[in-house]
Amino acid sequence: MQLGMVGLGRMGGNIVRRLMRDGHECVVYDVSPDAVSGLAGEGAVGSDSLADLVAKLQAPRAVWLMIPAGLTGRVVDEVAALLDPGDIIIDGGNSNYRDDVRRAAALRDSGIHYVDVGTSGGVFGLERGYCLMVGGPDEAFARIEPILRTIAPGSGEVERTPGRAGDFAPEELGYLHCGPSGAGHFVKMVHNGIEYGVMAALAEGLNILEHADAGVQEAEHSAEVAPLEEPEFYQFTIDTPKVAELWRRGSVISSWLLDLTAAALQGNPTLDGLAGRVSDSGEGRWTVKAAVDTGVPAPVLAASLFERFASRGEDHFANQVLSAMRLQFGGHQELPAGDVLEAGSRKSESSGGRQPGTDGAS
Amino acid sequence: MQLGMVGLGRMGGNIVRRLMRDGHECVVYDVSPDAVSGLAGEGAVGSDSLADLVAKLQAPRAVWLMIPAGLTGRVVDEVAALLDPGDIIIDGGNSNYRDDVRRAAALRDSGIHYVDVGTSGGVFGLERGYCLMVGGPDEAFARIEPILRTIAPGSGEVERTPGRAGDFAPEELGYLHCGPSGAGHFVKMVHNGIEYGVMAALAEGLNILEHADAGVQEAEHSAEVAPLEEPEFYQFTIDTPKVAELWRRGSVISSWLLDLTAAALQGNPTLDGLAGRVSDSGEGRWTVKAAVDTGVPAPVLAASLFERFASRGEDHFANQVLSAMRLQFGGHQELPAGDVLEAGSRKSESSGGRQPGTDGAS
Amino acid sequence: MQLGMVGLGRMGGNIVRRLMRDGHECVVYDVSPDAVSGLAGEGAVGSDSLADLVAKLQAPRAVWLMIPAGLTGRVVDEVAALLDPGDIIIDGGNSNYRDDVRRAAALRDSGIHYVDVGTSGGVFGLERGYCLMVGGPDEAFARIEPILRTIAPGSGEVERTPGRAGDFAPEELGYLHCGPSGAGHFVKMVHNGIEYGVMAALAEGLNILEHADAGVQEAEHSAEVAPLEEPEFYQFTIDTPKVAELWRRGSVISSWLLDLTAAALQGNPTLDGLAGRVSDSGEGRWTVKAAVDTGVPAPVLAASLFERFASRGEDHFANQVLSAMRLQFGGHQELPAGDVLEAGSRKSESSGGRQPGTDGAS
Amino acid sequence: MQLGMVGLGRMGGNIVRRLMRDGHECVVYDVSPDAVSGLAGEGAVGSDSLADLVAKLQAPRAVWLMIPAGLTGRVVDEVAALLDPGDIIIDGGNSNYRDDVRRAAALRDSGIHYVDVGTSGGVFGLERGYCLMVGGPDEAFARIEPILRTIAPGSGEVERTPGRAGDFAPEELGYLHCGPSGAGHFVKMVHNGIEYGVMAALAEGLNILEHADAGVQEAEHSAEVAPLEEPEFYQFTIDTPKVAELWRRGSVISSWLLDLTAAALQGNPTLDGLAGRVSDSGEGRWTVKAAVDTGVPAPVLAASLFERFASRGEDHFANQVLSAMRLQFGGHQELPAGDVLEAGSRKSESSGGRQPGTDGAS
Repeated sequence: MQLGMVGLGRMGGNIVRRLMRDGHECVVYDVSPDAVSGLAGEGAVGSDSLADLVAKLQAPRAVWLMIPAGLTGRVVDEVAALLDPGDIIIDGGNSNYRDDVRRAAALRDSGIHYVDVGTSGGVFGLERGYCLMVGGPDEAFARIEPILRTIAPGSGEVERTPGRAGDFAPEELGYLHCGPSGAGHFVKMVHNGIEYGVMAALAEGLNILEHADAGVQEAEHSAEVAPLEEPEFYQFTIDTPKVAELWRRGSVISSWLLDLTAAALQGNPTLDGLAGRVSDSGEGRWTVKAAVDTGVPAPVLAASLFERFASRGEDHFANQVLSAMRLQFGGHQELPAGDVLEAGSRKSESSGGRQPGTDGAS
Repeated sequence: MQLGMVGLGRMGGNIVRRLMRDGHECVVYDVSPDAVSGLAGEGAVGSDSLADLVAKLQAPRAVWLMIPAGLTGRVVDEVAALLDPGDIIIDGGNSNYRDDVRRAAALRDSGIHYVDVGTSGGVFGLERGYCLMVGGPDEAFARIEPILRTIAPGSGEVERTPGRAGDFAPEELGYLHCGPSGAGHFVKMVHNGIEYGVMAALAEGLNILEHADAGVQEAEHSAEVAPLEEPEFYQFTIDTPKVAELWRRGSVISSWLLDLTAAALQGNPTLDGLAGRVSDSGEGRWTVKAAVDTGVPAPVLAASLFERFASRGEDHFANQVLSAMRLQFGGHQELPAGDVLEAGSRKSESSGGRQPGTDGAS
Repeated sequence: MQLGMVGLGRMGGNIVRRLMRDGHECVVYDVSPDAVSGLAGEGAVGSDSLADLVAKLQAPRAVWLMIPAGLTGRVVDEVAALLDPGDIIIDGGNSNYRDDVRRAAALRDSGIHYVDVGTSGGVFGLERGYCLMVGGPDEAFARIEPILRTIAPGSGEVERTPGRAGDFAPEELGYLHCGPSGAGHFVKMVHNGIEYGVMAALAEGLNILEHADAGVQEAEHSAEVAPLEEPEFYQFTIDTPKVAELWRRGSVISSWLLDLTAAALQGNPTLDGLAGRVSDSGEGRWTVKAAVDTGVPAPVLAASLFERFASRGEDHFANQVLSAMRLQFGGHQELPAGDVLEAGSRKSESSGGRQPGTDGAS
Repeated sequence: MQLGMVGLGRMGGNIVRRLMRDGHECVVYDVSPDAVSGLAGEGAVGSDSLADLVAKLQAPRAVWLMIPAGLTGRVVDEVAALLDPGDIIIDGGNSNYRDDVRRAAALRDSGIHYVDVGTSGGVFGLERGYCLMVGGPDEAFARIEPILRTIAPGSGEVERTPGRAGDFAPEELGYLHCGPSGAGHFVKMVHNGIEYGVMAALAEGLNILEHADAGVQEAEHSAEVAPLEEPEFYQFTIDTPKVAELWRRGSVISSWLLDLTAAALQGNPTLDGLAGRVSDSGEGRWTVKAAVDTGVPAPVLAASLFERFASRGEDHFANQVLSAMRLQFGGHQELPAGDVLEAGSRKSESSGGRQPGTDGAS
């Protein structure tokens, strides 16, 4: 069928390519004329404005927006002004599902359908296909289903779930009508929230492996931390990149995120050059806020989000407060980074009750 | 090569089968004569005691124990008493790596090698192969490598990690020499710790999806909880089993644990009959304790463990304390489960400052 | 000075009493005529409608609302319609600070000042005074300061902070102008968020004390949980009520919440009759959402909120998912509550690799 | 009565002073002759060796050790060798309660009693008294009770818990016999675990207050983080030192730790010079491990411990892993600290699907 695509960045462009390969006709637009002409060279119908794009589509039209979330609201308005009742606007970007709910309501009287599509797949989507989480009216979903089916991965090489038989259901082909407008991005939001948790579980576990030699490092122990109690049990030097590779085969935690981790560690075993300041996009935050709103306990998802905040130093003032309290109640001096204990208290009992590096006095 | 196997339960039996298929010779023992005769019927050499098993092996021998962790210590001692210098004892069960460190040290003078093998793969291992994390002396590892290679999954259909080339490394075949005695179970322990975190991330996320209709339920709202502030954003009825199936294809969180989740929800979409009292084995606990010992932050792994504890009601006294405090400082009465607010305070302002169901007075 | 008070519940009534004791004049209103006549009997000027209340106040007026948060919006509108430029509306209830920001903006053109006052103190406030966190314009704050000073606890018997000298600052008297409209309830919100964390820390700690006899209980151990590894270290039967009382004296964690805990346990040492379903009001939720919005790590505050959710069973579906996964990958049967292991696997090695109650197969 | 004190550091010395003020006789020893002569000048009986100290005590003797935990084991052995059956050794330091259990067992045959005393009170104990948590045999506790009563704070100015009447119970005087050997330090351990949680709750809350101006900072927003969605609600500049002072009066979270916080912020309002690398002593770790052992959920206590670990950079490798994964799946470049977005994607839609600073492609 025919689709209009607005936004020809990496994902928008690849979706167009995937559609054209399967025989769909794409009318494309981007503020960058080069992006338009590039895809036109691959077989798409180029356009030089939103109005031009809409004019080149036959009614009832379907226009897919693949643009940064911050711009979606404005472009939805512009496109809607050009469309007719029965046409469909599809937001395939990373919008907050709340915006979908609002936009669908705003468009309701105009007779224009609003469909939100949460899209997962990353840079690999062109070949692998994109996992599509769709929200919107039944009628609109049914109309664009041929397009969704092409963009999605299909049943592929994934082993069929026991108990399923007969024709493949949409979810087995990689797309699903999750509910009314907003439901698609809601499910995508939770998907990303889970992703944060899975990533954190892997990262924390690998960090423990990296510290499995803590007993060897003990000689350099400082007063800043409690002494390792049984150093004999922490004498391992683990080759973390090899372990990540190993777990890809036959283990319970094999996963695509583990594949990526193994690839990252293969390319850069010591992770040189990475500062470890971990960004976050909106979805992890929205997921935690949705959990709070609905009264659902989500300590793992929240902790994974907060670890990212802390990685960027946002825990700094809190940590200063803790150090300040410790100074107050026990006269505990904060040691500068890397400082090594040489106080007599570990060598003799002469220091009596003085207990550096402990909350002893509390 | 030749291997002695002690313990012919599901995993021990399947490992023997997998070895025999690949031409290895297995001498087997179990306290259940039926288990022995069963495998003997499939080609193994049966034995009727540990001594008999040892006698039927040619030196230098390799004896694999696949028995419950609680019995391993005693059986290691019994087997060691029957072996000669240069022989190898392999513990393939779920021992705490600390026991490996102790046992290897205890055996050192005898010249008997001790190898620990963390084994992942579950009920699917016979066909899929087992992921093997190995600790022990280089010499012993090298000697049993042919066996490990057979038990492991091999390179299989897993896509090769970019940057790897040439012959497959052991970790690409599904087994790895992680370090000295204990290192195998240490890595397996962390693997399971990560597994807890991944499982919890999935479970929390799906729980949020289940509550996406909180705004619809709002009519039944009770004073027990804070009111949902924007019910219009929680009007979705999500088909969680379909979403789990969907995410298996093309999404960033596709993983074997997600496959299992989809299978579980396919077979029992409402999870009827499951009380949600989640057991835990030692590994998750040991992982958190290792994190604490080595000073590694592991909030996600710890939270996933604590959620399991709470699922079994171990948070009960703490929750009673919280309710008791609230009674004290605000006269907040705890509502019985399911109770619905009908106090006038929501209908009129006559109740003045009385704010049921809030910490208002604090 | 003169104050109008709307809402004569526990807190509103007590604030009026505290004001009258100190010589202020109070005009009072409540939808309950009995509440009005009761306070009129104690010296207040009664009124029988909002219009009557406003009419009995001299301009420039100050009207304090002490009503449930759900009603505040409507009553603010009604009162504002009766007031003149220069008058002040004070919201002393538990409003979300966001509503303050919106209401203050809505009133700006009318020349009516909006002041929000976060009020802490509970049932003890009449005698002890209320801690007041105030947001609003400088001019309005200055005008009502005499009233705030009376309602607040004053310097009381609290030891002066080292480094402070001279006249007492407002914060030393128990009230503070925190910033523009909304700032008062923002600070109160965070106060309550901290309160949740402190309460949880106490509750978790006392729960550990309650389980200090886990080694004694070990005989009844079931397969549902990992066995206690060193039962000899968990043989204590701690008298938790006495410990709570003890810590009130000289310990680092002495606090008012501990006082309440000791009182609760003194009155009901086994906490009989408390189901442990812990309510939450909005503030804890808003605090976590504010942390998420501003990128501040708040794992402790979030965990304390999620524990409350879980105490009400909101973790149920997540726990079912976990049990369902475990069934899939290891054939782990969930044991019914209270079930005790009697499988042979602990008594003999006959069960080979069967490891009940573990994630062994993973 | 008479007491021998070994270890005359800050706490040991002050306990001796507090005892002498109340008429007890103290024989004192320290490896520092100056410490001994100093206290001798204040009325204590000095000694120049452990043997001398023991010789100067009348049987049945009581010897209190107030020395660093690392030395306690050796000194217990030395003192025990000098004592007679019926004598008492008291460990008032910060030992792990497990060491108490072991030491008491080792001394059992000798007839020497072992008493462990967890001591809280810090630098303020000389005047305020110390909160004492005691473990050991009934007989030994009864014998040293006069000493404990003197060291403890007494009923002081703490308001009596409602429902208590008649003579003060020991816990109302600030000391408690918690159980057999080890119980004292067990209760102290949990006390400190709670302390970590309370400190973290305060620090996180104050950190949120510090970020209440996030909406003002928004102009400097970088692509590294999700944009603040409603900056109009984060426009507050909160004077955190004043708020800490305010909450000391009449609020629900008034506590000694809050007093210390207010004092710290009064002395150093911006916490200049504090790096925020927060030390931890053993107790917080032991508490979490006890929770894990006994199956008690302790997410708040664990999170507060992990925050300290992270404050010292122990989350670094985990964060690098997260950044490395993000690079893999979405080509997300990690921005250097402080970098500001200037990519076109926020200014125009020309970038199409390129979404810097998001997990957009996932």
